[in-house]
Amino acid sequence: MAWRYALMIDPAASDDPRTDFSETFTVIDPATPALSVGELSTQRGDGIFESIGVVDGHPQEVEPHLARLAHSAQLCDLPAPHAEQWRQAIARALAEGPAEGEGVIKLILSRGVEHGPAPTAWVTAAQAADNTAARTRGIRVVTLDRGYDSGAPARAPWLLLGAKTLSYAVNMAAIREAKRRGADDAIFVSSDGVVLEAPTASVVLRFGDRFVTPEPTGAILQGTTQVSLFDHLRAEGRDVAYEAIPAADLVKADAVWLLSSVRLAAPVTAIDGAEIVVDAALTASFNDYLLSPRD
Amino acid sequence: MAWRYALMIDPAASDDPRTDFSETFTVIDPATPALSVGELSTQRGDGIFESIGVVDGHPQEVEPHLARLAHSAQLCDLPAPHAEQWRQAIARALAEGPAEGEGVIKLILSRGVEHGPAPTAWVTAAQAADNTAARTRGIRVVTLDRGYDSGAPARAPWLLLGAKTLSYAVNMAAIREAKRRGADDAIFVSSDGVVLEAPTASVVLRFGDRFVTPEPTGAILQGTTQVSLFDHLRAEGRDVAYEAIPAADLVKADAVWLLSSVRLAAPVTAIDGAEIVVDAALTASFNDYLLSPRD
Repeated sequence: MAWRYALMIDPAASDDPRTDFSETFTVIDPATPALSVGELSTQRGDGIFESIGVVDGHPQEVEPHLARLAHSAQLCDLPAPHAEQWRQAIARALAEGPAEGEGVIKLILSRGVEHGPAPTAWVTAAQAADNTAARTRGIRVVTLDRGYDSGAPARAPWLLLGAKTLSYAVNMAAIREAKRRGADDAIFVSSDGVVLEAPTASVVLRFGDRFVTPEPTGAILQGTTQVSLFDHLRAEGRDVAYEAIPAADLVKADAVWLLSSVRLAAPVTAIDGAEIVVDAALTASFNDYLLSPRD
Repeated sequence: MAWRYALMIDPAASDDPRTDFSETFTVIDPATPALSVGELSTQRGDGIFESIGVVDGHPQEVEPHLARLAHSAQLCDLPAPHAEQWRQAIARALAEGPAEGEGVIKLILSRGVEHGPAPTAWVTAAQAADNTAARTRGIRVVTLDRGYDSGAPARAPWLLLGAKTLSYAVNMAAIREAKRRGADDAIFVSSDGVVLEAPTASVVLRFGDRFVTPEPTGAILQGTTQVSLFDHLRAEGRDVAYEAIPAADLVKADAVWLLSSVRLAAPVTAIDGAEIVVDAALTASFNDYLLSPRD
């Protein structure tokens, strides 16, 4: 039976001197109504989020996720999150869950209720879907035009391209388009042909002994799982690099993975119908690492 | 005292043969929790909406709004809305409100709760803000790059550019950017310099005796208020046209307005700091028309 918990949070100002935030949390049944129809998260997708993987009760990479939440808040002119409050909220949500298995914790910070005084915040914790097939048999992807050229993020920060906002309708539409084309997922490319990211994952390619991922230029979200994997590869003495990757190079790669916090490393078996060889042993070693406790 | 009502809707299939949908509506207090944290509207901005102006108890342009809701649903692979059910929901929400003054009715159709069986739908009705100053004194606007080139909508329908989705974080960020620059609102232009729309309004320009608005190419939402105003102008024997408008032409126009369902016709007094003359009498005649009962 799948488990699921939720915690409403009364968000503290970033300079709140308290050390114990337990009184700001309210555990709720996630199936019961908790948000009003005036919520700007629901009316405008106006808020930010993070998804944290949980393995056997351990939340993975909490600090990088909190750092990215703070970065998203800044890009969206939301009040800076109080990191310690969110740490305690994560711990509190986890205390409600089982000590074994895989889960996902979502942190949500909404601009709040329309004309309301303050942001709304909550955390959900749920059992993860079984991602074994994606991690071992792999996934088929298609490339989809993201519409923006590579220069857009620098000249138009109001496009919020580096923020993980709740406005994910396009990301969801891209995954539906991929499925319509007989694939499992998508890789976005810029209108001038540069590899960006997947709708909910980062892209990593192997060329010989080198592992390459798109530069974190602000056009994409830098993936916490991708960064963690690169740390691991570097520690193993492997060569990793951030580069502008032409879309045409995707099918020239010796291997391609999509990396994300919950599905972890999913080897790509085909891009736009062109088959790609899967290195099963290397992929398994990636997922072994990604399933180990990481901070 | 501002009034506000909300109605939860159990959405009917588009071929539901019922003629009375009253049993599918539940009037709620809009301030109380009504949505669960699993709502995809709130997690992903994954849903669509319409905002309908209300004048002295009369909902304006209901059928064009319902037609656009159906178009958005199609673009987003959501089940087709049952038009008659929504008509009755609008009437039911209005019956809760006062017979005088200006209001706004919002129709929201969300993809529903994650892993849930069906969409979620609701209607809110609220007193409108006082838009007298915007309608008479006018608004200052800045142009902002929308990031997309003019060809993007045709080659990448998954960008949902013609759909009125709940993923409005960028629209809200653009209005904040405009305010940072000392203006009131923004006009989006494509990366190749074509006038698009405002974050929550349509753009209409006057050149001599001609009234011009951007072509409804799929890059923008066709504004119900703009269409209604063009019908009115045409009936008055005036020349109206849909054209590709170079951004450089904005400051050459004899007059510019932003048109939307609730604020109605707001004359633009400056674009990127360049002053524009306001035709007060013509603007007043537009708003007189737009405040008259329209279907």
